[in-house]
Amino acid sequence: MEPDVTRTYQKFETLWKVISALGRAAGKIQWDQQVMMPKQGGDMCAEELAALEEIHHERMVDNELWRILCDLRHAASEGFLDSMQSANVRLALRDADRARVIPVSLASDIARQACIGEQVWEEAKGRNDFAMFAPHLAKMIKLKRAYARYLAADLKDLYTPLLQDYEPDFTAAEVTKLLSDLREQLTPLVERVISMPQPDCSVLKKVYNADGLHRLSQRVISLMGFAGGEDSRLDVSAHPFCTGTLKDVRMTTRFVPEDGLEAFYSTLHEAGHGLYERNLPYDQAGMPVASAVSLGVHESQSRFWEVLVGKSRSFLRYIFPELQNTFPDMLANENSDSLYRAFNAAQLTPIRVNADPLTYNLHIIVRVDLEPLLISGDLEVLALPEAWNRRFKELFGFTPSDDAHGSLQDTHWSGGSFGYFGTYTLGNELSCQLYEACHAAYPDLENHIAAGDLMPARHWLREHIHRHGSLYDAKTLIKKATGKPLGCEALMRFFKKRYEDVYQTSL
Amino acid sequence: MEPDVTRTYQKFETLWKVISALGRAAGKIQWDQQVMMPKQGGDMCAEELAALEEIHHERMVDNELWRILCDLRHAASEGFLDSMQSANVRLALRDADRARVIPVSLASDIARQACIGEQVWEEAKGRNDFAMFAPHLAKMIKLKRAYARYLAADLKDLYTPLLQDYEPDFTAAEVTKLLSDLREQLTPLVERVISMPQPDCSVLKKVYNADGLHRLSQRVISLMGFAGGEDSRLDVSAHPFCTGTLKDVRMTTRFVPEDGLEAFYSTLHEAGHGLYERNLPYDQAGMPVASAVSLGVHESQSRFWEVLVGKSRSFLRYIFPELQNTFPDMLANENSDSLYRAFNAAQLTPIRVNADPLTYNLHIIVRVDLEPLLISGDLEVLALPEAWNRRFKELFGFTPSDDAHGSLQDTHWSGGSFGYFGTYTLGNELSCQLYEACHAAYPDLENHIAAGDLMPARHWLREHIHRHGSLYDAKTLIKKATGKPLGCEALMRFFKKRYEDVYQTSL
Repeated sequence: MEPDVTRTYQKFETLWKVISALGRAAGKIQWDQQVMMPKQGGDMCAEELAALEEIHHERMVDNELWRILCDLRHAASEGFLDSMQSANVRLALRDADRARVIPVSLASDIARQACIGEQVWEEAKGRNDFAMFAPHLAKMIKLKRAYARYLAADLKDLYTPLLQDYEPDFTAAEVTKLLSDLREQLTPLVERVISMPQPDCSVLKKVYNADGLHRLSQRVISLMGFAGGEDSRLDVSAHPFCTGTLKDVRMTTRFVPEDGLEAFYSTLHEAGHGLYERNLPYDQAGMPVASAVSLGVHESQSRFWEVLVGKSRSFLRYIFPELQNTFPDMLANENSDSLYRAFNAAQLTPIRVNADPLTYNLHIIVRVDLEPLLISGDLEVLALPEAWNRRFKELFGFTPSDDAHGSLQDTHWSGGSFGYFGTYTLGNELSCQLYEACHAAYPDLENHIAAGDLMPARHWLREHIHRHGSLYDAKTLIKKATGKPLGCEALMRFFKKRYEDVYQTSL
Repeated sequence: MEPDVTRTYQKFETLWKVISALGRAAGKIQWDQQVMMPKQGGDMCAEELAALEEIHHERMVDNELWRILCDLRHAASEGFLDSMQSANVRLALRDADRARVIPVSLASDIARQACIGEQVWEEAKGRNDFAMFAPHLAKMIKLKRAYARYLAADLKDLYTPLLQDYEPDFTAAEVTKLLSDLREQLTPLVERVISMPQPDCSVLKKVYNADGLHRLSQRVISLMGFAGGEDSRLDVSAHPFCTGTLKDVRMTTRFVPEDGLEAFYSTLHEAGHGLYERNLPYDQAGMPVASAVSLGVHESQSRFWEVLVGKSRSFLRYIFPELQNTFPDMLANENSDSLYRAFNAAQLTPIRVNADPLTYNLHIIVRVDLEPLLISGDLEVLALPEAWNRRFKELFGFTPSDDAHGSLQDTHWSGGSFGYFGTYTLGNELSCQLYEACHAAYPDLENHIAAGDLMPARHWLREHIHRHGSLYDAKTLIKKATGKPLGCEALMRFFKKRYEDVYQTSL
């Protein structure tokens, strides 16, 4: 690099690493809120997150940073920057550009309302009291609508700028198209599978003790290559999630009696997210390229480990003895085959997070159908429960018993995450494309998995996804890793193969 | 208030609450570092704390804030502000004034080096390797010397500005005078007590299981009036501490075999700090007045509960059956009297945190003698271990076995806390003055304590110390609460009475 460019780039690094550290600090405080905070600490916590958001925003829109980035964009176009550096400049410009159109007061209002709204939602859901939550949802929608208006290229499409917070390279139209393509093929398959004689799933309804589940969760995390208290933590929270990055990755799970063995799969899921964060390029720590490219790609990692690996015959063959040793009484009459069928059995449930892989995406369709209407104002908050139940019935054939099993079930909207749900389906589709590519690279992949060796899969994902961070945009990364653009074909092939095997039939 | 003043004051509140939230955020991240963080997360954590410190500092020195504070000082002098408001303005001006002379890069360098230095110290102490720690200590001393030079009224006294970070209303000369007054009376008393036949302390050397200690710790916290997961937490860390404030107070303890029953007293100590924070004026949350007035006053709270209440005959009479129920085998041959003697027995130990109340302050004198020399440069870092051992021998009559039991034992200097140690002695002295005043207000105080009723003491402290926050400066508060300025008389009276009772002799 030219000496001048070197100095300018170093200045960019210094400024950006502070922004990045503020983001990580906020992440730790949100983790704390979910996992550690005494109950009455919520108001102070909301002030802390709002302050961090205000300053994060202020730093992001700083004029000095903007000037430096414009200089560096020029330097990149002249070939003075390497590919990682160019990507850092491109990504920083993208984020700064988005932030510069948002008033700082709006950004901190959203952060504060997210923190408060999540707490109210938690309580409202527990009481099945939509009316209690409604004013907070309305307030958040109003804030996010204002936010979208600042960003929208087309004021008639306020949904795209929101979803691009999570999936920067996709538009609302593209996500909707992916979902409707999938729906067309998925609905008849779901109908066929659901109408078949169902496997015995009573093993899933038993009550397993938390200690055993915790040991199994720790075990699966270490199988996936985490180094325990060196680089990660596993804790308990009301809703499982993963946060942190690089050498400090934090996953949570929950142990509640009605979840049966779900904690085990929840841990596999979150550890899939965690592995992505763990293996991002550490030499770029604090720079934009050392972050996940999008939530859809993130979700492809969690589903890869949870569904493609975790619920496969091969993995269950390996892990079954450990499951049975941990719960000898509960699993006395089971074997790896019976567990495989139970874990994969399709059923129509009102709750998204309880859904099997096959019907899961129908839940996403309900949400992605409704949320653009909430944002545009075509659907009033108070009319949401009824609209939800109607749309749900069209897809599932029955109406949820109450709002806690309907429109009140997810935390996302309380925290302002509109446009997030679609990324789950993108992730499901991508996980299957990745698995096919990984399998092509390692034809004996399943033998490794059946022997408890998860390293080939870990290695392939690290090589083709993790280590690149955000060097490529999502579409380019997907094409490079899997050889094709994102679509529903691999997912449908996976469903057909898995469900033919589970139901011992031809679909 | 005049409408203009009202608006100006509101603007001050808005600005200050962000500063305050940033401080709390940093506190949570430091707590996380000690209690929760995966080992390899240290470098990212240091960046987060440095970023928060940089921005905290930047906000503190903001010109708009300064102008507003100057306007409000004028409004206060004209009588437009109430006493809480005036105190907030006075305290904010004091803090902003100090911050405005410190370059932001120096402030964030200190924060970063503190985080790194503490990690190196931890390891160096474990290995008894002073040379490993020395360059980090030297770096921190250089930074703090620079810091002190910016603040010093007199460049020959760089120690006063450092200790005023912890004890704003005292000078180095005043602290030194308090310590030498105390030393004069204390040394002959220690000599007399140490030369006497010692009580049997073998009960303290036994190994108690962590579960029992944890239950007892939780029990004592709830006796003191904490509401469990509602307003507080108790966790485990390498070194016990207390952080957080108001409705989110976090205490830690440690359960290590060689500590015997120490965890129980460590919890009482930290909960004393915690109760102060818990009872600060919540309606002023986020404003300067809602904070502890000084570290000396803070320490008076912890010692009040640990030593004056916790190690008293009355409290031990109450708690002994619970201790014995928890550890029936270990305490089979004990009674409340034998425990009382063991817990209070005086002995000369090399380690400050293991010291009994009587000899504790001699440890402080070693440190307060040495640290001004480190700051002035008259004592080189590499000469510290020898200087420590020499001074220690003068006061204790023997030399520590190694640096881990000598100059490497405390974490304070690694984190840049020079001028902190003196506040322990101020706290010890004040705790006795407060106890005398509280006892005068509740003549049957000890009967309450003997019945497990700690509410009179809690109530009195809340009324005379906690609820005022920083409304008064430390000297005024001490005078109002105890009727006299700070001195060693009450502490010496306490020692005489307690040790005459423990050793059943006349001193």
